[in-house]
Amino acid sequence: MPVADKMIEMIDKSSMIRKMFEEGAKLKAQHGTENVYDFSLGNPDVPPPPEFNKVLKDLVNDDNLNHGYTPSPGLPQVRKAVADFISSEHGVNLSPEMVIMTVGAAGALNNIFKALINPGDEILTPSPYFVGYNQYSFIAGAPLKTVATDPNFHLDPAAIEAAITENTRVMLINSPNNPTGVVYSAGELTQLADILNRSGSKFGRPIYLVSDEPYCKITYDVEVPSVFKAYSHSILINSYSKALSLAGERIGYLAVHPDAEEAPLVAGAAAVANTMYCVNAPSLIQQAIGKLQGVTVDVSIYRRRRDMLCAGLSEAGYEFNVPEGAFYLFPKSPIPDDMEFINRLKDELILAVPGTGFGAPGYFRLSYAVPDASITGSLAGFKRALERVQ
Amino acid sequence: MPVADKMIEMIDKSSMIRKMFEEGAKLKAQHGTENVYDFSLGNPDVPPPPEFNKVLKDLVNDDNLNHGYTPSPGLPQVRKAVADFISSEHGVNLSPEMVIMTVGAAGALNNIFKALINPGDEILTPSPYFVGYNQYSFIAGAPLKTVATDPNFHLDPAAIEAAITENTRVMLINSPNNPTGVVYSAGELTQLADILNRSGSKFGRPIYLVSDEPYCKITYDVEVPSVFKAYSHSILINSYSKALSLAGERIGYLAVHPDAEEAPLVAGAAAVANTMYCVNAPSLIQQAIGKLQGVTVDVSIYRRRRDMLCAGLSEAGYEFNVPEGAFYLFPKSPIPDDMEFINRLKDELILAVPGTGFGAPGYFRLSYAVPDASITGSLAGFKRALERVQ
Repeated sequence: MPVADKMIEMIDKSSMIRKMFEEGAKLKAQHGTENVYDFSLGNPDVPPPPEFNKVLKDLVNDDNLNHGYTPSPGLPQVRKAVADFISSEHGVNLSPEMVIMTVGAAGALNNIFKALINPGDEILTPSPYFVGYNQYSFIAGAPLKTVATDPNFHLDPAAIEAAITENTRVMLINSPNNPTGVVYSAGELTQLADILNRSGSKFGRPIYLVSDEPYCKITYDVEVPSVFKAYSHSILINSYSKALSLAGERIGYLAVHPDAEEAPLVAGAAAVANTMYCVNAPSLIQQAIGKLQGVTVDVSIYRRRRDMLCAGLSEAGYEFNVPEGAFYLFPKSPIPDDMEFINRLKDELILAVPGTGFGAPGYFRLSYAVPDASITGSLAGFKRALERVQ
Repeated sequence: MPVADKMIEMIDKSSMIRKMFEEGAKLKAQHGTENVYDFSLGNPDVPPPPEFNKVLKDLVNDDNLNHGYTPSPGLPQVRKAVADFISSEHGVNLSPEMVIMTVGAAGALNNIFKALINPGDEILTPSPYFVGYNQYSFIAGAPLKTVATDPNFHLDPAAIEAAITENTRVMLINSPNNPTGVVYSAGELTQLADILNRSGSKFGRPIYLVSDEPYCKITYDVEVPSVFKAYSHSILINSYSKALSLAGERIGYLAVHPDAEEAPLVAGAAAVANTMYCVNAPSLIQQAIGKLQGVTVDVSIYRRRRDMLCAGLSEAGYEFNVPEGAFYLFPKSPIPDDMEFINRLKDELILAVPGTGFGAPGYFRLSYAVPDASITGSLAGFKRALERVQ
């Protein structure tokens, strides 16, 4: 076998996802793209805000723009802009040295895991969880342990405390959550912090809370509470993939809480990991986002789609919680076998992702980062699919 | 210790490099930037070609430009453009599926090592070697073994054959070479291929030749011969960091020889690694380089500087080989202790990198990616430093 043994399993998993995409592409070729309702992708389709286009044009129209290496942790003025913004949002005094600019949130997660994880250490995450976490824990060489959430997909404190062991190095959370759309409340974060503090004392070393928040600006009637306010051994992961619809440009950051144990060493280790993985975050887009702190896409577009989809599916008889953030709906599958129900939806030319992929069999995920017409056009099909299995 | 044990050594090494930079920055603050001659950086300062600026502006002026995720291995039209260009340059018939667009050459190396390396496998590279290879082999979890080159820094076939063991999974070469400026000849590559074929048969599995060629378009009176023509189990690594002076934008690729053992599986595994490390190569710059195959910076600028520096140092009495490619000169240190000689140069406000960092004590590296004025201004200092140690 020419390929590394451990990669085979990852290749197989990735083949399953690719097969799903290929089947979708086949349907589109057969029936016409406009007749297939593709809710399977988390690729933001709302355009970047006009401020971004202006900043990018201004940068590019300067013929003296430098495209050379940036310092590996990021351009000083960009780190400062991000640190200042985090300081104002989280009520901390964060120095630029605690911020590392990264190749998206994926790069940030890989960096911080490489910085923190020793052989034998484990990552704990509430389930359902973003499928990419399997990959980043694979890269880190750490098992990804999961702990069930409550029936509304919120944190279950007792279950978390029971799941933490002496090997738990990182608690990884994602709020607003992909796939559930849940936003953890300030009270939940405080409870979680209590558990982590207690468990850290019990096992003799701090447990780092890694909070992955790429959807933090895509919320409806709620704000994402600050993890920095809740827990000192915390690391904030973010990207501009959704806030500015720049997913393909690969720009994000990690920020280490200034009061985390040996915070400068942790940030320094993450910066070294950043050098080793990718040298530096892309320069041009780094410069752009440095000038766009606090700017966000038009969230009302996602809200409109969420409301349309929720109204339609509710009327059809689906069960789900109305998402408070992100752009996903996570309904209960009307039959226990979510893989089977995905196929029933496919009969109606509707593409969705089975909950099994997120560690939650019996559910399915719909992304509403889709044109309004996909929603209105699909509702009859959703209704028929449900009726046929009842 | 909050940071992973294995990271401590990498942090220490990186601190040494940072300390060197900081000392340089201090000198510049003391004496004025224009009075310090900084030959320590491999950051291309020749501007990108005008074609790049035009293509980038055209892309950015389209307000409908999509910044969303690209397929992880790259945009189809970009992979095709790169595959077509490689096919014409290397005389192979390379399909786009064999090309993975990456976050620079660093991303490409991390991907291919993750794809190929099992625990116990080793990477072999001729020394002197690019310091980043320590990092990428660290990420791969594989020891980096080195084999000495001949006195002119060309490959030593007997030494290579003796150095290969049953654990050698990858032979990693870099031509034009950083730090030596050597370009391996077609004859050398053929000899190397013979050794790899023989050793592969002996140990019962192919040894992959990973050829890292980011400087392939920065050459003087020579062409870089094709590794694809020399050896079938080869993987080409390249970037646009130097060819288009886009080092900070992080765009490169890996290409698997179509006749390599299970080539599609190897390319597929590298694509999965790419997803896990960075999701996709930056979208905007991907699109730009797709339209710029075969375009290169003005190499005559590097040639002029090379010739100025060679003439000046030769006149001063330094010993070195005239580089055939890249933008580095690798002179012999006039005293055995290269670290000490670097300090003597610093007394003359000249910044250089000790050969020890490249596995070659007794030498030092000068980057001539610097303004002409740095060269002319520094020659008297080079002369004095040499005289003082003689």
